[in-house]
Amino acid sequence: MSDFPAFRRLTLIGIGLIASSIARAARVEGLATEIVCATPDADHRARALRSGLVDRAFADNAEAVAGADLVILCTPVGVMGAVAAEIGHALEPGTILSDVGSVKDGVVRAVAPHVPDGIHFVPAHPIAGTENSGPDAGFASLFRGRWCILTPLPDGDAAATRRLSDFWAAMGADVELMDTRHHDQVLAITSHIPHLIAYNIVGTADDLEAVTKSEVIKFSAAGFRDFTRIAASDPTMWRDVFLNNREAVLEMLGRFTEDLAALQRAIRWSDGDALFDLFTRTRDIRRAIIDAGQETDAADFGRHVGDDT
Amino acid sequence: MSDFPAFRRLTLIGIGLIASSIARAARVEGLATEIVCATPDADHRARALRSGLVDRAFADNAEAVAGADLVILCTPVGVMGAVAAEIGHALEPGTILSDVGSVKDGVVRAVAPHVPDGIHFVPAHPIAGTENSGPDAGFASLFRGRWCILTPLPDGDAAATRRLSDFWAAMGADVELMDTRHHDQVLAITSHIPHLIAYNIVGTADDLEAVTKSEVIKFSAAGFRDFTRIAASDPTMWRDVFLNNREAVLEMLGRFTEDLAALQRAIRWSDGDALFDLFTRTRDIRRAIIDAGQETDAADFGRHVGDDT
Repeated sequence: MSDFPAFRRLTLIGIGLIASSIARAARVEGLATEIVCATPDADHRARALRSGLVDRAFADNAEAVAGADLVILCTPVGVMGAVAAEIGHALEPGTILSDVGSVKDGVVRAVAPHVPDGIHFVPAHPIAGTENSGPDAGFASLFRGRWCILTPLPDGDAAATRRLSDFWAAMGADVELMDTRHHDQVLAITSHIPHLIAYNIVGTADDLEAVTKSEVIKFSAAGFRDFTRIAASDPTMWRDVFLNNREAVLEMLGRFTEDLAALQRAIRWSDGDALFDLFTRTRDIRRAIIDAGQETDAADFGRHVGDDT
Repeated sequence: MSDFPAFRRLTLIGIGLIASSIARAARVEGLATEIVCATPDADHRARALRSGLVDRAFADNAEAVAGADLVILCTPVGVMGAVAAEIGHALEPGTILSDVGSVKDGVVRAVAPHVPDGIHFVPAHPIAGTENSGPDAGFASLFRGRWCILTPLPDGDAAATRRLSDFWAAMGADVELMDTRHHDQVLAITSHIPHLIAYNIVGTADDLEAVTKSEVIKFSAAGFRDFTRIAASDPTMWRDVFLNNREAVLEMLGRFTEDLAALQRAIRWSDGDALFDLFTRTRDIRRAIIDAGQETDAADFGRHVGDDT
């Protein structure tokens, strides 16, 4: 239980992996007196209520935000503009409106026009997640030791930013401030391109004729299976990420394919030194990530497979 | 302890991750009366002897194989031909000569010319490993529940193939037979291309100016860090893999970049359906890998990071 002064009512729009983790963490740390959610999925509403994730669950977004002093959009980024249009009139003055989208510039462009005066819109993005989706996938410690990036608007309210920052810190996150465009560039390389190429290679493998699908599955421990974890992430969320961060993704993808063409050439012309140089310098980056506490140093992620065989 | 009739003397050329795991597993299961190794690295010899991995350790490869009835080449594939040339004359008739290289056609072409009559050359490739290297990185259970592919030569000795197959099975591996070229195609997609693109994206990230290296490290939990594990693998081993499986790697890489270009186009033209279709079908492959016992179903590989914060 933190000493954070609780919000009166926290409304989560959507109740997937991130929202259900926020609900759990906010509950554990006592960050909101009441937690409610909105989702069109009746089954998700029933599950969220039954498991005690939320106190009330609504089908209608505007009804759900009435009386809330913190509203967090936890839907795919592609629908956040439409949700903002629905709830804008129902938000009470002084309410903090935030989101958890993996893209920030596109979200601000879609949401900001629907935010009335007196509402404090503070975009946010917790860098945390797993490959699982839905209200049962969340857990209270998801944000612990992870970064949460806030991208306050140039004319945003400093007190609201501070309050939201404290909220994320109370859930265990380290908070960083950034402008929206820089956020989108950083995430393009640390997240969006890795997801794109993981999806892509799994698709390429699925299409082969010379190698059967059962062989790809059987021998996946050779490296391929790491990529399938990322390529098992929520399809709607990721479609929206790519459609809403097009510019930064295409820019980073251009660099990636340029570098890959150079590697391809090194292989074709047996340039062993070029390969060795790259393969050596990439080791240092992993060491730095482990030293920064963002990764386990256990071999193979510490995963245990086939222990029982 | 298995009921496998032990080899008289097992000689491992090299004592890195795979060789030291074989030594440990062979010890635990009683698969060889004596285990010796050869490596030019005096420190590795001392460590292998001190930890009881091997009974004797040699600097000279030919000395190490004298009296052995099973010799396994555990060096990078690029030097296997030279090693074979050194030890060929010292091998005793009836000895089984094998290897653990990630490429099979190139190894056979390099090694086979140096194998005298009466020696049974049976190429092998255990699909197991971690991102760590060296004699201390190995562990006895590395091969348990993993596949080991044997690629016996068309005119190979069936009894020798069976004996080597039993040896791997006694260490816990499931054994599969394949021809060398098909092996190289399967591994190109399940292993070589995943490694190549992991190395490549880590290199691309390292070269950015708009995003600092410290930002890449800080926010790596968004997906990037998964790739750094693979890109921390042994540089010499992987340089040799690409130089020795050029044909299959370039063929698979061509397909990968073609598919990536199609994805790039879908993003540029906002073709959400194309993205969604791919992102949906890739989920099934991961499910199948988990069902096949080749992967954990724990979220995020079951890794725990930041638990102590």
